[in-house]
Amino acid sequence: NSSLPNQEENRTVSEENRGLLETFENQHPNRDYEIEISVPEFTSVCPKTGQPDFGTIHITYIPEALCVELKSLKMYMQAYRNQGIFYENVTNVILNDLVECLQPRWMQVRAEFTPRGGISSTITVEHYSETPPDELTVI
Amino acid sequence: NSSLPNQEENRTVSEENRGLLETFENQHPNRDYEIEISVPEFTSVCPKTGQPDFGTIHITYIPEALCVELKSLKMYMQAYRNQGIFYENVTNVILNDLVECLQPRWMQVRAEFTPRGGISSTITVEHYSETPPDELTVI
Amino acid sequence: NSSLPNQEENRTVSEENRGLLETFENQHPNRDYEIEISVPEFTSVCPKTGQPDFGTIHITYIPEALCVELKSLKMYMQAYRNQGIFYENVTNVILNDLVECLQPRWMQVRAEFTPRGGISSTITVEHYSETPPDELTVI
Amino acid sequence: NSSLPNQEENRTVSEENRGLLETFENQHPNRDYEIEISVPEFTSVCPKTGQPDFGTIHITYIPEALCVELKSLKMYMQAYRNQGIFYENVTNVILNDLVECLQPRWMQVRAEFTPRGGISSTITVEHYSETPPDELTVI
Amino acid sequence: NSSLPNQEENRTVSEENRGLLETFENQHPNRDYEIEISVPEFTSVCPKTGQPDFGTIHITYIPEALCVELKSLKMYMQAYRNQGIFYENVTNVILNDLVECLQPRWMQVRAEFTPRGGISSTITVEHYSETPPDELTVI
Amino acid sequence: NSSLPNQEENRTVSEENRGLLETFENQHPNRDYEIEISVPEFTSVCPKTGQPDFGTIHITYIPEALCVELKSLKMYMQAYRNQGIFYENVTNVILNDLVECLQPRWMQVRAEFTPRGGISSTITVEHYSETPPDELTVI
Amino acid sequence: NSSLPNQEENRTVSEENRGLLETFENQHPNRDYEIEISVPEFTSVCPKTGQPDFGTIHITYIPEALCVELKSLKMYMQAYRNQGIFYENVTNVILNDLVECLQPRWMQVRAEFTPRGGISSTITVEHYSETPPDELTVI
Amino acid sequence: NSSLPNQEENRTVSEENRGLLETFENQHPNRDYEIEISVPEFTSVCPKTGQPDFGTIHITYIPEALCVELKSLKMYMQAYRNQGIFYENVTNVILNDLVECLQPRWMQVRAEFTPRGGISSTITVEHYSETPPDELTVI
Amino acid sequence: NSSLPNQEENRTVSEENRGLLETFENQHPNRDYEIEISVPEFTSVCPKTGQPDFGTIHITYIPEALCVELKSLKMYMQAYRNQGIFYENVTNVILNDLVECLQPRWMQVRAEFTPRGGISSTITVEHYSETPPDELTVI
Amino acid sequence: NSSLPNQEENRTVSEENRGLLETFENQHPNRDYEIEISVPEFTSVCPKTGQPDFGTIHITYIPEALCVELKSLKMYMQAYRNQGIFYENVTNVILNDLVECLQPRWMQVRAEFTPRGGISSTITVEHYSETPPDELTVI
Ligand SMILES: [Ca+2]
Ligand SMILES: [Ca+2]
Ligand SMILES: [Ca+2]
Ligand SMILES: [Ca+2]
Ligand SMILES: [Ca+2]
Ligand SMILES: [Ca+2]
Ligand SMILES: [Ca+2]
Ligand SMILES: [Ca+2]
Ligand SMILES: [Ca+2]
Ligand SMILES: [Ca+2]
Ligand SMILES: [Ca+2]
Ligand SMILES: [Ca+2]
Ligand SMILES: [Ca+2]
Ligand SMILES: [Ca+2]
Ligand SMILES: [Ca+2]
Ligand SMILES: [Ca+2]
Repeated sequence: NSSLPNQEENRTVSEENRGLLETFENQHPNRDYEIEISVPEFTSVCPKTGQPDFGTIHITYIPEALCVELKSLKMYMQAYRNQGIFYENVTNVILNDLVECLQPRWMQVRAEFTPRGGISSTITVEHYSETPPDELTVI
Repeated sequence: NSSLPNQEENRTVSEENRGLLETFENQHPNRDYEIEISVPEFTSVCPKTGQPDFGTIHITYIPEALCVELKSLKMYMQAYRNQGIFYENVTNVILNDLVECLQPRWMQVRAEFTPRGGISSTITVEHYSETPPDELTVI
Repeated sequence: NSSLPNQEENRTVSEENRGLLETFENQHPNRDYEIEISVPEFTSVCPKTGQPDFGTIHITYIPEALCVELKSLKMYMQAYRNQGIFYENVTNVILNDLVECLQPRWMQVRAEFTPRGGISSTITVEHYSETPPDELTVI
Repeated sequence: NSSLPNQEENRTVSEENRGLLETFENQHPNRDYEIEISVPEFTSVCPKTGQPDFGTIHITYIPEALCVELKSLKMYMQAYRNQGIFYENVTNVILNDLVECLQPRWMQVRAEFTPRGGISSTITVEHYSETPPDELTVI
Repeated sequence: NSSLPNQEENRTVSEENRGLLETFENQHPNRDYEIEISVPEFTSVCPKTGQPDFGTIHITYIPEALCVELKSLKMYMQAYRNQGIFYENVTNVILNDLVECLQPRWMQVRAEFTPRGGISSTITVEHYSETPPDELTVI
Repeated sequence: NSSLPNQEENRTVSEENRGLLETFENQHPNRDYEIEISVPEFTSVCPKTGQPDFGTIHITYIPEALCVELKSLKMYMQAYRNQGIFYENVTNVILNDLVECLQPRWMQVRAEFTPRGGISSTITVEHYSETPPDELTVI
Repeated sequence: NSSLPNQEENRTVSEENRGLLETFENQHPNRDYEIEISVPEFTSVCPKTGQPDFGTIHITYIPEALCVELKSLKMYMQAYRNQGIFYENVTNVILNDLVECLQPRWMQVRAEFTPRGGISSTITVEHYSETPPDELTVI
Repeated sequence: NSSLPNQEENRTVSEENRGLLETFENQHPNRDYEIEISVPEFTSVCPKTGQPDFGTIHITYIPEALCVELKSLKMYMQAYRNQGIFYENVTNVILNDLVECLQPRWMQVRAEFTPRGGISSTITVEHYSETPPDELTVI
Repeated sequence: NSSLPNQEENRTVSEENRGLLETFENQHPNRDYEIEISVPEFTSVCPKTGQPDFGTIHITYIPEALCVELKSLKMYMQAYRNQGIFYENVTNVILNDLVECLQPRWMQVRAEFTPRGGISSTITVEHYSETPPDELTVI
Repeated sequence: NSSLPNQEENRTVSEENRGLLETFENQHPNRDYEIEISVPEFTSVCPKTGQPDFGTIHITYIPEALCVELKSLKMYMQAYRNQGIFYENVTNVILNDLVECLQPRWMQVRAEFTPRGGISSTITVEHYSETPPDELTVI
């Protein structure tokens, strides 16, 4: 469908999207701790069918020097609303953008998409700076 | 029951089914990440009783070079609708077919069948290429 | 209560029960995989009070050469309907009978009984042939 | 509050309570297996306020030579009905009494108390004889 | 917004808050055991927007010589009602205050905040005295 | 199946079962009020297949002069354990027996049976003495 | 799609399907009572797309002289497995067939279909012989 | 069991219990409105077995001139802790006591008791002053 | 915000949207029956803030001569994706458009919107042709 | 407690609170329709104990000429944060304020408060202009 953004445009758009992210200084950098953020109202467009996709994005990270500002994250997520991008790609791109901005010790992005044709998909991607830190045990 | 496909036919059918699967290129092959797919409307036929079986198939994998295209996976699953095949067999055959097509770093197929005679069954099968990769922790 | 079977009879009955179990050949013996079976309508009789007991039996195993046939398993479970046997004992006896018939690589029996006097009990028993196999990760 | 039992009385009461516990012989001592018991209707009295406390006690153990008889356990639990004892203390005392009677290979007592002042508390205590046994995996 | 406490005031307030915490002696110090406390009605004020924040605070710890008295903990939590403090900060401050008062062997604070702008956040922070103790297995 | 009780025997058995029911005097006969009783562990035998049936029986009534004694009701329900009787029939027979014993102002019996062949059934039967009373509103 | 049955064939098929239904005599015809039957594994084919449809069919009725035999109902439902028929139509046809066979005092068929394109549908149809009977109150 | 209070004592005790109830003035008497109160931690003693009973008491009423003070209601409920009284009786007695104190326009008491011998009971009793008011519709 | 469509444009847009709806003939017009349709992935834009709104639209109707075609309904719903329209207005407009197209005997539109600023809203609107038909009882 | 607002102040405060409410014009006044609004994060202060109260306020109404603007409603609700007011009173006052502002055809306020001393309360109040309108059936 020619009205949809192609992959080339996509790369450009991602750089634009990334510019929306803002950070604030981690006030407790000497301690490993986990921040989990859930964004239940994510929507983008399927590049193949032009149909809207819907999902929930879960971001979990151990901050280094910076934390993501939540209102800017919301704006960043809304920037995908009318962009054509596949499930696997958008999950990796969101991780890449957040890692670029925050340089976290560890980060995971998990994207749960609603069913299409009766089939539902979830993509989970992880990043860590050097060696994986000992993750906190959620009891 | 002579109207049901025998095991011999079954093997042939599986090769036909496998031909329905299509793939697309993994755009992030340098990173281990997990793709989970749930197919809640799987149905086949019990070779012994001729009665329909119903279940949910969960597929999880870490892609190497290829990912499975979801619409083709749906067609592949529908191909079992009128085929006679037992629980343990169909779960292993689905894993075999997907491994043959995708050559993933790791893959698990989990098939949860609805009760028959008050008894419900779930079959879980795993494949990994050489050594099992360090699986992602879903937090 | 003299109308209840004693432990001696119990042993005999178990041998009779075991005779009800039938098996079929594992078609994928070269691969470790898990079979989970849930039997929600188990009932037996308390040897002490003569009152009926009710519970759900969960069987999980990694087959070697044989799998249990589900209809015969149902008949085996129904054979306890009017037999007097305690919680801890019946769970171990079911494991023993299934291990004797199937010689699995690994097997667990978990019996969840409904409350008696406001108190509910669950018994979990495991068997493995030599060394415990690396169990499959249910994701 | 002078109408409440003090800690000294408490110790005496515990010895009396412990006398209510009865055991039966473990018929499968050669095998490590787990017994889980839930007592949802536990109630005692707060020594500070004189107000009733309510909770659910979960006991899990791997028996050595003896198992606890359930009706006697119920009587033991009811003995706390009008005794003044704090959360942390009663959980440890129940574990101590059961360990004294059963000498289990491993035992855990988990006491979940209902909210007081909008705040709910859970206490978890464990005992093992020498080295902690390899606990059974509940799948 | 000039009517909100600044970070400087914040530090002072925390010292005042900490003074509200009271302790009692751990009666079973020779045994590692876990105390979990849930405070579902936590509320503070966002320093940026002046809007109220709401959340549930989960505290889990292995006591050394002291346990926190629950009524004083409730008063401590209520002291944040009209204080301006960010999510990440308040979670770390609560852990710091409790560690200062109790000197526990291990402690985790997990703060689950309700959605703002459709986005929900959870912060998890841990402290241990020297080496992390072998945590209890919640079965 | 010749080993199963026929309908003729059934009628006789019902009279025997009914003899198990005991009553106590309603202490508040001047007021319409509702008594709901749930029996989750009902089991009988299918006269056609010889297979056990399982279900939950809900009894609701407005007493006149008599209430049913719960322990005798339990014995009455257990009397069906090895009797062959169909769903529709046993629900009506239980209502008939209770009406005969209690002569209530109004009574409903609702029997929810577990699935057979993937199909679950619920039977609901009502009795009232003369005109249906104004039922209580459960708010 | 020319391989799908047309509406003309559909009518013929329905007559064939209806022939599968068997009945048994209502043993309590002098009393209005309700029979609810749930068939969770209904599947047919969409005449427009050729894709399988899945749903749960709930049948509720007050019998006159006849009740539907459950095994024959299962066979009747399975007859739709490879037939092309729309949601609204199949719900009305099932009601028509059951009314023709049972001549019930009142009957309702409620068909809940799983989502297609993210949209789920439920169709509810009722029949009564002359005047609607006073329905039983499910308490 | 001679240590249990008899019915005669029971009547006396009820008068004592009733004395614990306190009221406050309804500030909006010109409007019909509903007050629902749930007491989840009710416990008394079975006069027949001496065993503790547990339940949740739901009180709903439309006040006339007076409302019940909640702390006094809590004390009133705790007064049953060691009193022997049957399910049907305690529900009616609670209604009687509250009606005597509050003279409400309408009141319902619904007592849900936990299972005994696998059987659970709920008792629902209503009072209204003259004609039943038009109850509020909870939407 | 000048980039948002004004109410005038809104009216025009609605006429365009309505043109997307397609119908098919009701094959059972002589019978009152209910069609319920749930659209869980509705999204539009708040005219005041420019922020996206999300909700689930439930449509229930009794058809006269026409039923709405589901794929066209999906396209109709997607047309609101980038239109600025308030909660109350969009619910009434959807009802108006569907009534104009289908001329149903009765129709209800219920729109459940996700929380904004911690507050969630649901709008319910009904239409009936002349007198409200006797609605079907969903049992 | 002298630091708490007395009833006299309360009345004044309510007038101040009411001034926070803003309205917008109902665009569909010729049709009866329902607007439901849930405010889950309501908090005020108990005038007797000085302790914070927490609850969820559900508002449902059929508008006449005006609808309540949601952001102003949020500000109105937050105004109670540090005001001392009892459950029954605040529910009636909220209804009075909204009725004064909106003059709705019908309105219900339902306030569900979290447990205090283990006891939870819900207050439901209704207003209608002249005769109660035929409420919409939520299906
Ligand atoms: Ca850890
Ligand atoms: Ca994983
Ligand atoms: Ca990891
Ligand atoms: Ca593994
Ligand atoms: Ca374990
Ligand atoms: Ca293991
Ligand atoms: Ca451990
Ligand atoms: Ca009722
Ligand atoms: Ca009434
Ligand atoms: Ca009904
Ligand atoms: Ca009725
Ligand atoms: Ca009501
Ligand atoms: Ca009303
Ligand atoms: Ca309806
Ligand atoms: Ca009707
Ligand atoms: Ca209506």
